[in-house]
Amino acid sequence: MPVYEAPVRDMQFLIHDVLQTQKYSNLPGFADATPDFIDAVLEESAKFHQQVVQPLNVVGDKEGCTRNADGSVTTPTGFKEAYKQFCENGFGSIAMDPEYGGQGLPLFLAYAATEMTTSSNHSFGMYPGLSAGAWRAIHAHGSDTQKKTFLPKMTSGEWTGTMNLTEPQCGTDLGLIRSKAEPQGDGTYKITGQKIWISAGEHDMADNIIHLVLARIEGAPDGIKGISLFIVPKFILDENENPGERNAVSCGGLEEKMGIHGNATCVMNYDGATGYLIGEENKGMRAMFVMMNEARLGVGLQGYAASEVAYQNAAAFAKDRLQSRSITGTKNPDGPADPIIVHPDVRRMLMDTRAFTEAGRALVFWATLQADLETKAPDEETRQKADDYMALLTPVIKGYLTHRGYQGCNDSLQLFGGSGFCEEWGMSQFVRDCRISTIYEGTNGVQALDLVGRKLMADGGRGWQAYFAELDELIAENENNEDLKLFVDGLKDVKAKLVEGTQWMATNAMANFDHAGAGSFDYLCLFGLTTLSHMWLLMAKSAVEHKQSEDPFYKNKLVTGRYFIERFLPEAGAHLAKLKIGSDTMMALEAEAF
Amino acid sequence: MPVYEAPVRDMQFLIHDVLQTQKYSNLPGFADATPDFIDAVLEESAKFHQQVVQPLNVVGDKEGCTRNADGSVTTPTGFKEAYKQFCENGFGSIAMDPEYGGQGLPLFLAYAATEMTTSSNHSFGMYPGLSAGAWRAIHAHGSDTQKKTFLPKMTSGEWTGTMNLTEPQCGTDLGLIRSKAEPQGDGTYKITGQKIWISAGEHDMADNIIHLVLARIEGAPDGIKGISLFIVPKFILDENENPGERNAVSCGGLEEKMGIHGNATCVMNYDGATGYLIGEENKGMRAMFVMMNEARLGVGLQGYAASEVAYQNAAAFAKDRLQSRSITGTKNPDGPADPIIVHPDVRRMLMDTRAFTEAGRALVFWATLQADLETKAPDEETRQKADDYMALLTPVIKGYLTHRGYQGCNDSLQLFGGSGFCEEWGMSQFVRDCRISTIYEGTNGVQALDLVGRKLMADGGRGWQAYFAELDELIAENENNEDLKLFVDGLKDVKAKLVEGTQWMATNAMANFDHAGAGSFDYLCLFGLTTLSHMWLLMAKSAVEHKQSEDPFYKNKLVTGRYFIERFLPEAGAHLAKLKIGSDTMMALEAEAF
Repeated sequence: MPVYEAPVRDMQFLIHDVLQTQKYSNLPGFADATPDFIDAVLEESAKFHQQVVQPLNVVGDKEGCTRNADGSVTTPTGFKEAYKQFCENGFGSIAMDPEYGGQGLPLFLAYAATEMTTSSNHSFGMYPGLSAGAWRAIHAHGSDTQKKTFLPKMTSGEWTGTMNLTEPQCGTDLGLIRSKAEPQGDGTYKITGQKIWISAGEHDMADNIIHLVLARIEGAPDGIKGISLFIVPKFILDENENPGERNAVSCGGLEEKMGIHGNATCVMNYDGATGYLIGEENKGMRAMFVMMNEARLGVGLQGYAASEVAYQNAAAFAKDRLQSRSITGTKNPDGPADPIIVHPDVRRMLMDTRAFTEAGRALVFWATLQADLETKAPDEETRQKADDYMALLTPVIKGYLTHRGYQGCNDSLQLFGGSGFCEEWGMSQFVRDCRISTIYEGTNGVQALDLVGRKLMADGGRGWQAYFAELDELIAENENNEDLKLFVDGLKDVKAKLVEGTQWMATNAMANFDHAGAGSFDYLCLFGLTTLSHMWLLMAKSAVEHKQSEDPFYKNKLVTGRYFIERFLPEAGAHLAKLKIGSDTMMALEAEAF
Repeated sequence: MPVYEAPVRDMQFLIHDVLQTQKYSNLPGFADATPDFIDAVLEESAKFHQQVVQPLNVVGDKEGCTRNADGSVTTPTGFKEAYKQFCENGFGSIAMDPEYGGQGLPLFLAYAATEMTTSSNHSFGMYPGLSAGAWRAIHAHGSDTQKKTFLPKMTSGEWTGTMNLTEPQCGTDLGLIRSKAEPQGDGTYKITGQKIWISAGEHDMADNIIHLVLARIEGAPDGIKGISLFIVPKFILDENENPGERNAVSCGGLEEKMGIHGNATCVMNYDGATGYLIGEENKGMRAMFVMMNEARLGVGLQGYAASEVAYQNAAAFAKDRLQSRSITGTKNPDGPADPIIVHPDVRRMLMDTRAFTEAGRALVFWATLQADLETKAPDEETRQKADDYMALLTPVIKGYLTHRGYQGCNDSLQLFGGSGFCEEWGMSQFVRDCRISTIYEGTNGVQALDLVGRKLMADGGRGWQAYFAELDELIAENENNEDLKLFVDGLKDVKAKLVEGTQWMATNAMANFDHAGAGSFDYLCLFGLTTLSHMWLLMAKSAVEHKQSEDPFYKNKLVTGRYFIERFLPEAGAHLAKLKIGSDTMMALEAEAF
């Protein structure tokens, strides 16, 4: 049975030492998040997820969800009860707006809890995860009435939410949406169409499900400019705003998937369902992107959260499994063989995953601080810079952390040998569940294109210029610190390569857009390596401040960081060389040749 | 439903043009394999696998195998009938010894057929695959009587074979084997113990199953030097050498696995089963390695065979799926969007997989020729060199082709977006099935250690010295051919890095063996890139000879090869840099820190 222990100490280090979040007490909600309070929340969350949510992970995989004859969906044994406790404990509403019943705490605290949910049980975490995205879209673009009507129950978790984008003929290309919205003259619309891959589209854990649905109002312009966003509740609210009449929306089937079996992935049929427009007509994409960006950050988290739990299990196995002797001499003379952790190639897989995961967590926590600054900072300049960072780095976080997180899951499975392939040990589930994270909320290829096609160019490159300047400043500040030399040099080197890649893109993409596309994924990886090096310098700096400490935590942190610089950064040169090849050969074959 | 078309044209190109196998007509069996004959076998095999074996692939995944109450195992619907046809058509006996009913044809032809079996249906292919390994061990180390008794029916496929190595406490470290063999005084032994992960250990497709079992004779030395190999038939043969009394061996359970559901992965219980010693007492490992080496070559094949079929499906999807417009302008004005093959990042995934797969096939075909030279060449020098090559390159072929093949399956799934994650499209099965290939027959980490720890050092480095000399010769021969410049330069460059890595290993591994272990996997990858560049130069050379041809096949081959050189070789520098880091940081943490 797989194990999981929430990495509370690592989170505390990031929050208190690296990000020093107590410095931001001028931001709304941050003053309440004293170090003691934060520690208490982390401990409570750890206990709950370890004891309640994690034990349901294998159950969810084995049982999956069941669609009953009446179209209702039953979640795996225990999910409903655990979700109730999850809501009662307030793990879903940590950072939500107090005006609608939320706790108004900093986002990093919400993400710390979400990491624990995800590492414990990816499928389970998607139910509140999707709700949070829908909540945010209504919060940002809904009318006051809509917010008052829907948000409090979504905050409490009594109602959940969904995102309905995909249709059989359109995934990435939402301009092809066919679902129709017919105005009824009373301010409502009749929504008709079929949506697929709707996570948590139907289930038995909530009293109502608030679907956010992209559809096209009759006569709207073609393509993306004719898409509107609607609220379609499963149960239409009665005069007391309680779930009343059943709306004409139903689950037509569940997908059979490679992983995340515990999550209900639904075909949703809208047969003239009553819907309420969010924001303006034909401006649905803007509102949807509020959900998408938040969701992409959450998916980035899923990447490293998966590799965290996979790593923990691999580490436990590596210390326990006795097989062969160390090539440098027997380490466990009383046993029939040495624990496999003595073998360098086993260490390689553990250290690869660990060095990535710790930096991935730092990056997401750092980003949640930016997300809070974006909306809560008192001055426009800070808000703008944070907004630029989020726009620029969201595709990097989503794309690179899931790319590498999946690799971490695979390496962790590999370490188990044949046991990794047997479902009994649970490693297969980590790989199968994590597999979706490189795909949903925009495939990693789409993230890469978003990065080079939109985010680099936006506002004349203001985002990357600010970010690169921040790196230069950090490098300059620490350049004379001998303890940090390796980290400073590493960041300098990878950043120089990223700058070179950025310049290449700027010069060559104009001549032929396909060059940008051809190098986009390598560019994203190069960017990812840079951001993780940035995080390692920040972490190393904090660890070095404790260098007199007896606590091995800080020394271990520096070793892990050193490993990252030494063994990850050689990849930067390969990515740069690949992206500079351009698209000529890649695009040379006729389509028929494939 | 996934598709598969056997790559007959590619195989013909390799056999006739690149390897020019007709030049080896002095080897036994090769004269019979005329070009026309080869083409006929390939066509027959293609037809059979496409029509009979491939349609059972999804069936096998969904149904899996069933262990019945009496311990018997039922294979998925259709497997038994297809296996009968497979045997009748002789696909399992192509290269087997005519003395025992085999066709005595060149090994490359057997492997061409095996590639088709594997691409069509990995699980199905394992039944004859394991048999072939057992056949080879008996053929190489069995007594004349054993050979006459067991081989003919294994050649015909009426009986199948298995390899019984693993026990719960030992996988890689076979010295820990506990299964016991008790001499009965009549030349037979009673075998007692439990074996796990026995592929095709029990099933309903054959009249008898010939288990090869590693066990320890009472009083044998500890560890690897006290292991003997036994033949343990499921049914003991009667006086007419027909299956008679049931032996005391039974299937105690089936593993629930991530993939290859159609193959029965058995717990095998030996309860005083009658066994017959193969070869000498305590020399079982030597005989077992005959099976292992053959099996490792076969697993290397599985890596690229999986990416071949995954690629084919991805290519079909990429030409069919309409989504978004090309960034360089509309390519499909009559449709609602362009086929996704116009997008560079989609091409990247296709070209990555294709450029790998074509070279992987070339490497395995080239290696099978070496394997034939090893046993059939008239002169000792050729046999020795081929033997050295096989020893050196088997871990590279097993490790690198499965490592990269798994990536090809994943990239192909990725190309499908959300559909890739839904079982309905079949891409998940390719990934799940292929996942085992990086693990079984020695994990890729074990291959890497075998390469640096044994194969490099063997006979004073005779193997790699000969191989590097062959590369130098090839480079010198083609250095003035302008058409091949890119390929020659690419091979030169990657080989220089491999030489540098080899020297680093030689120098540093002596000081600290952990340095060798720490860099072993990167060294294996660097070696893999070199061998594939070698193959691309050979293929490019043949393609260039047809440069006046109107047939786009040759031009496309050169484009694909160019892509390999341009976009794979940048990784060589990263591997070299990583391996030269050594083990200090990797091994620095205390085990408790994990």
